[in-house]
Amino acid sequence: MQIKLTKKPKNCKLIEGFPGFGLVGTIANEFLLEHLKFEQIGKIIFDEMPATVAIHEGKVVEPLGIFYNKKYNLILLHAITASTGMEWKLSNIVIELSKQLNIKEVICLEGVGSSDETVTSRVFYYSNNEKNKSKFKKLKVDLLKEGIIIGVTGAVLLRAENIPVSCVFAETHTSLPDSKAAAKVIEILDKYLGLKVDTKPLLMQAEKFEGKLRGLLSDGQKAQQLSEKKMMSYVG
Amino acid sequence: MQIKLTKKPKNCKLIEGFPGFGLVGTIANEFLLEHLKFEQIGKIIFDEMPATVAIHEGKVVEPLGIFYNKKYNLILLHAITASTGMEWKLSNIVIELSKQLNIKEVICLEGVGSSDETVTSRVFYYSNNEKNKSKFKKLKVDLLKEGIIIGVTGAVLLRAENIPVSCVFAETHTSLPDSKAAAKVIEILDKYLGLKVDTKPLLMQAEKFEGKLRGLLSDGQKAQQLSEKKMMSYVG
Amino acid sequence: MQIKLTKKPKNCKLIEGFPGFGLVGTIANEFLLEHLKFEQIGKIIFDEMPATVAIHEGKVVEPLGIFYNKKYNLILLHAITASTGMEWKLSNIVIELSKQLNIKEVICLEGVGSSDETVTSRVFYYSNNEKNKSKFKKLKVDLLKEGIIIGVTGAVLLRAENIPVSCVFAETHTSLPDSKAAAKVIEILDKYLGLKVDTKPLLMQAEKFEGKLRGLLSDGQKAQQLSEKKMMSYVG
Amino acid sequence: MQIKLTKKPKNCKLIEGFPGFGLVGTIANEFLLEHLKFEQIGKIIFDEMPATVAIHEGKVVEPLGIFYNKKYNLILLHAITASTGMEWKLSNIVIELSKQLNIKEVICLEGVGSSDETVTSRVFYYSNNEKNKSKFKKLKVDLLKEGIIIGVTGAVLLRAENIPVSCVFAETHTSLPDSKAAAKVIEILDKYLGLKVDTKPLLMQAEKFEGKLRGLLSDGQKAQQLSEKKMMSYVG
Amino acid sequence: MQIKLTKKPKNCKLIEGFPGFGLVGTIANEFLLEHLKFEQIGKIIFDEMPATVAIHEGKVVEPLGIFYNKKYNLILLHAITASTGMEWKLSNIVIELSKQLNIKEVICLEGVGSSDETVTSRVFYYSNNEKNKSKFKKLKVDLLKEGIIIGVTGAVLLRAENIPVSCVFAETHTSLPDSKAAAKVIEILDKYLGLKVDTKPLLMQAEKFEGKLRGLLSDGQKAQQLSEKKMMSYVG
Repeated sequence: MQIKLTKKPKNCKLIEGFPGFGLVGTIANEFLLEHLKFEQIGKIIFDEMPATVAIHEGKVVEPLGIFYNKKYNLILLHAITASTGMEWKLSNIVIELSKQLNIKEVICLEGVGSSDETVTSRVFYYSNNEKNKSKFKKLKVDLLKEGIIIGVTGAVLLRAENIPVSCVFAETHTSLPDSKAAAKVIEILDKYLGLKVDTKPLLMQAEKFEGKLRGLLSDGQKAQQLSEKKMMSYVG
Repeated sequence: MQIKLTKKPKNCKLIEGFPGFGLVGTIANEFLLEHLKFEQIGKIIFDEMPATVAIHEGKVVEPLGIFYNKKYNLILLHAITASTGMEWKLSNIVIELSKQLNIKEVICLEGVGSSDETVTSRVFYYSNNEKNKSKFKKLKVDLLKEGIIIGVTGAVLLRAENIPVSCVFAETHTSLPDSKAAAKVIEILDKYLGLKVDTKPLLMQAEKFEGKLRGLLSDGQKAQQLSEKKMMSYVG
Repeated sequence: MQIKLTKKPKNCKLIEGFPGFGLVGTIANEFLLEHLKFEQIGKIIFDEMPATVAIHEGKVVEPLGIFYNKKYNLILLHAITASTGMEWKLSNIVIELSKQLNIKEVICLEGVGSSDETVTSRVFYYSNNEKNKSKFKKLKVDLLKEGIIIGVTGAVLLRAENIPVSCVFAETHTSLPDSKAAAKVIEILDKYLGLKVDTKPLLMQAEKFEGKLRGLLSDGQKAQQLSEKKMMSYVG
Repeated sequence: MQIKLTKKPKNCKLIEGFPGFGLVGTIANEFLLEHLKFEQIGKIIFDEMPATVAIHEGKVVEPLGIFYNKKYNLILLHAITASTGMEWKLSNIVIELSKQLNIKEVICLEGVGSSDETVTSRVFYYSNNEKNKSKFKKLKVDLLKEGIIIGVTGAVLLRAENIPVSCVFAETHTSLPDSKAAAKVIEILDKYLGLKVDTKPLLMQAEKFEGKLRGLLSDGQKAQQLSEKKMMSYVG
Repeated sequence: MQIKLTKKPKNCKLIEGFPGFGLVGTIANEFLLEHLKFEQIGKIIFDEMPATVAIHEGKVVEPLGIFYNKKYNLILLHAITASTGMEWKLSNIVIELSKQLNIKEVICLEGVGSSDETVTSRVFYYSNNEKNKSKFKKLKVDLLKEGIIIGVTGAVLLRAENIPVSCVFAETHTSLPDSKAAAKVIEILDKYLGLKVDTKPLLMQAEKFEGKLRGLLSDGQKAQQLSEKKMMSYVG
């Protein structure tokens, strides 16, 4: 696994969102990509996952793309590929990227499973940095006191030792992509970073992204299954 | 995996067709090999797949052969072996080959799955190069706007950064080798490259190739199953 | 796998407790961590296990943390992650850590399975050092005469050649985390090391730790299962 | 995998026969070993297969032995071990051996599966060398026009580029070791190499070898199964 | 895998006994260890098998221990761990050990499966050395004429080229540890090496060792199963 960059902006904040519970991180990132002005400045080269490529609006969508927003000095690591079994490698990539670009803060957007099926999604933060903790407190976000974090975000929390890491977690109850939870994450992020995004149509838009992502992932899955089935009935 | 070449013609276009949906790429390549004048100039050496060798018309058929057509300055990468699990390696091979021969354009022939079972096969293009895009537009081929590309072609699309890559996709509905879809690919390719092949008997011929390929692949499969069964009943 | 230390106190005793039978080692270590004053001085970096991170009281709990108690000159290797398949690697880590810190004695806390379901848990010792053997004899602990030791402790016993190693084993009968067995281990350790811990409320407290650990481990398991289920129903 | 030789005769022909369809190659080689005067001059060292050793007439039978016949200047590579999964490695060994000994021709003895269950076994040849092709034609052996070759012979056909390779294939219909097919291979080989073996009692003898080989392979299989069963019932 | 020795006596004979059919080799070695005066002079370090440690009479039993008897100048390689999948590695270890200590003869003690369930266990020898062959002949032991040897002994027979290797095989019929077969092996070994052991109570003692070994191996198996079950019911 390897980072490829065409530009190296410095001192940005890095937002990462991998597909986890309720696809919260990926949906939130997808919203940011469409809402704010990002340009692609790189990608992550990998061999470990199937070569499934999505074409969207006539363009190849990078499975692991790196994007840059100049106005807010943000880097966005956008993932539309499952990271199962690659959590440690991807966390090393996040940390290496952070070092190369002298990242000031890594912000992880993530869903956390909730066994309580009736409650509305709550949002929590975690931070390993006192200054950032108080920023979240001022926004009246609750600290995640007890919980289990899995996936790339969990690995980043264990490995990122001298890098300030903050997480915004939204509870998610269903087994479907949860655009409402993603919208709540964006709401907090908007305040935390002062992005001044118009959050009113956000929920509606989130549902759109959810549909798109579900389509991309499900088509990829179907394509592979179909391909295997065809090959087998062909040579069987 | 390794490229072996006995000749190194330069500035050719490279046509690749791996067995994917409906075996479209392989059938189309098979047609080109028989219709135009190609000589074998190399092969790809591999250890990753079973050592299954087809003998056709008294000659060994290379599982991954490299052929050269002088008249149209074309390289053809012909694959009659399944590439599952080797997509990244094979895409690296395609790119390495392109660099060694200073390839001007990689043209991928590929089937794409269609959930719509009744419609006639449509053909689409994708290109990462503006000049080539407009060539396809002039031929009135539609751009593939939304879709999932798997296999070697998907991997080539992600990895081939500075190389012009174009794809001709034909929709395929059935779980059988689809010579009609392959014929449509050839029709477009013929116009795109100015090959002036007589496309009238093409469909009939395509069915012949389809039968041959199905035979080769199915015999190989049977041979291995038979071999394992025999060995087991023998020592069991 | 790799040791990371921020401090290197010398000539300490090292207590290790991995999750084995009845989680005895981990529960006992958990008790020591809360009862005595420990500071984290390091951790073990690994890639071999899932990146499952517990957050407890708003802080990340290291899966394999190294702690130091100055008063009794103790190092504690605390493990809340399963070590299956990593026994040899972890035993090498224990020995390397012992060499780096010039550890005077490795003390392993461990449960041993008992087929006799009715008897109260007995406690046994094993030691590869004559002086330490007589210390255990004076405390009227029985020597483990016949038995099978599996896991990291078993591997440490085979590999630690020039390092004094002592083990305190408690019999455990149930398939649940056994805080009573862990309490018995702590009782012996308290006398052996002269820790002067108030062992009266220990059993009650042990039950608390048991509950917490069960929660952490079970939540982690659930989180991963849930995550996989969600992902599947999502793309399936 | 590694070649060990105690002698290095030069400019021989190399006969290889691996256990494939109907064990044709191995039975044929077994016949040659007993009929002509061969001395063992080497073996192939491997780690990839089970350490199953046959003792025959009080002597260890090499799983992959290299033998030399001075009179006809023949090297024989005799295999009584299954080569599944090692086809490429073994083909590399055949080619390396050919280079070390400056082998003039590799002759592969092999069975090919036949779906036609009633016809008598036919024999075919394949050759990559024009001079050898015409020798087979003079013997009125048919060229294998269409077919699938699997196993070591298939791999040798693909890899042996500058070495003359000839194959003698006998059709085999049953799932049992086929000494009749092996006898037909020997008949052709006798004429092709001018060995002047008395082919009359060959079929009878072939049946003897067949029985012996079946015994060796089946005993090895049984021994391993028995061993595993015993071990399990022992410790289970 | 690696040999660790604290002493290096030279020109000894090396007796190896791995757990194979009927555990013959291990039971026989166990008897020798208890009957003659052996001191531990080394062990084999490995990572490939589970870290299951037996404690017997208050002492750790090395899974692969190396012992020395001065009076008869014997080295004994004692194995109480299954060697499945490590046969080649262990045979390399036996050969390396033989070279380091300039071993004069490797003697393998082994069971061979017998399909004949009614006959009393017979004993056979195999030797690659003429002088040793005639010693066995004088003792009226039969040569193993036809048979399949699996496991470490089989691998040693193939690999030990310049080292004299002798084997004493006892037929074993049952799926249980066979102390009677082991006793027969000891009887022959006693005469072959002139050990002058009192073979009268041997059978009775052999049964004791059998029981002990069965206990060790079965406890280890149970301990691991129990451990896995506990862990699962715990976190499941």
